[in-house]
Amino acid sequence: MMPDDASAATPAQSWALLIEYDGAGFVGWQRQRDGLSIQETVERAASRLAGGMHVASIVAGRTDAGVHAAGQVAQILLPPRAAPLPAERLRAALNHHLRPHRIAILMAAPVPPGWNARFSAIGREYRYVILDRPARPALAEGRVWHVAQRLDAASMVEAARALLGRHDFSSFRASACQAKSPIRTLDRLDVCRVGDGIEISAAARSFLHHQVRNMVGTLALVGAGKWRPADVSAALAACDRRAAGPTAPPQGLFLSRVRYPEDPFAAGADAPAPT
Amino acid sequence: MMPDDASAATPAQSWALLIEYDGAGFVGWQRQRDGLSIQETVERAASRLAGGMHVASIVAGRTDAGVHAAGQVAQILLPPRAAPLPAERLRAALNHHLRPHRIAILMAAPVPPGWNARFSAIGREYRYVILDRPARPALAEGRVWHVAQRLDAASMVEAARALLGRHDFSSFRASACQAKSPIRTLDRLDVCRVGDGIEISAAARSFLHHQVRNMVGTLALVGAGKWRPADVSAALAACDRRAAGPTAPPQGLFLSRVRYPEDPFAAGADAPAPT
Repeated sequence: MMPDDASAATPAQSWALLIEYDGAGFVGWQRQRDGLSIQETVERAASRLAGGMHVASIVAGRTDAGVHAAGQVAQILLPPRAAPLPAERLRAALNHHLRPHRIAILMAAPVPPGWNARFSAIGREYRYVILDRPARPALAEGRVWHVAQRLDAASMVEAARALLGRHDFSSFRASACQAKSPIRTLDRLDVCRVGDGIEISAAARSFLHHQVRNMVGTLALVGAGKWRPADVSAALAACDRRAAGPTAPPQGLFLSRVRYPEDPFAAGADAPAPT
Repeated sequence: MMPDDASAATPAQSWALLIEYDGAGFVGWQRQRDGLSIQETVERAASRLAGGMHVASIVAGRTDAGVHAAGQVAQILLPPRAAPLPAERLRAALNHHLRPHRIAILMAAPVPPGWNARFSAIGREYRYVILDRPARPALAEGRVWHVAQRLDAASMVEAARALLGRHDFSSFRASACQAKSPIRTLDRLDVCRVGDGIEISAAARSFLHHQVRNMVGTLALVGAGKWRPADVSAALAACDRRAAGPTAPPQGLFLSRVRYPEDPFAAGADAPAPT
């Protein structure tokens, strides 16, 4: 019998996967009892390459139900093989077994012992798209938060500045958040008008649960003229979830990128298999 | 009884509609016996505002089955009313009746007698998106042509130049095309690498049937290295459909804009109702 996790005597092959998915219809990344998760779907596809054995995975960003990813990174541990799979074949085989789910493995790369998709990550980037026009989206349905009222992007830009840097983000943290500390450093929070939409991009080493969606929901209050930009500073200072705005819906959120000290995918799909 | 078309004695109210739609699941703009068209869906919604009477429409670009629109323009003729609807209410009412179809009226504007959505148009702009990467699209499914091989955008740029200007486009014309002349003037054919995709935008006063998709299918041969850029000039000169490449699939194509001597929607949604 082959070992099915990294703690076994024979070392497993550790792979990093760059993943794109449409979050609609999934209960989120993480396995849940009440529905299909992206984790379970990816692990099942991987187990087809491991002779049916369970394959464990570690993920960089545990996206919630309905949240999309353009650049999620997950790590899977495959049992050792006499002839390791080339990266390109692993990717193609996983994509084959992932059909018809809206999950695509963009890249696969072998990673060295000690590398961890979650704990080695030094940055996460999210993008949130609001469509602020009277007509509901026909093309972007399920990919944007539709707000019928035109928002004032300039005041949202001003309000976003207050959130930059190192703060106690308790006001923007879900009650279910399991992080030990509410302190995070927000490196970037850009707000940009793009046609009939507003794009918000956020970057930090890590985020609290619902932090991006809570920041977006609060910025939207400013854009709608219900809050002044200064009210956002006050909400942050309150360190109380009830002081900030509502949680923006999941379908406008995309995990766009995960950063590591060295890009595991830099070598491209033709990277050699681990030895 | 009220008249239901412009030829009746009492003049109908003529409206221009700016329309976005997802072409998936429709047989195209034009009414067909074998499936649901966007035209029929829009006309049915409009007839709800006309006491159930049939409402005729005229469209700027008759998109094929599966082709999307971000900026289609259609014209509808509504029977005269004692109190004409404000533009904003007309738009909202149409969008209400269009549910749950993926069709959205972005703007509605009254247009003067003699204005015609099709014949007054002086320009059409289309965008075509190719996703050229090994992994199939998870997020952009149904909105791109997926080509597993990486295409060389630079050689496609070079090949596109040969098609610019006034030519006999018989080599890029569908056999079913009903236009009297195969001569068209292609004002713009830009090819641009955007991440894992190639975006092609085309502008002309008007296009032949399948012209954009046939040009894209031919440029893709160049991008894949199967044709040299010079082969595209030769295909154009042949004036024979069999000389050019295949028709690119519909789901990558978007009608992005229709141009008129004066933008009928310039006044915005708050334009006054026709008197």
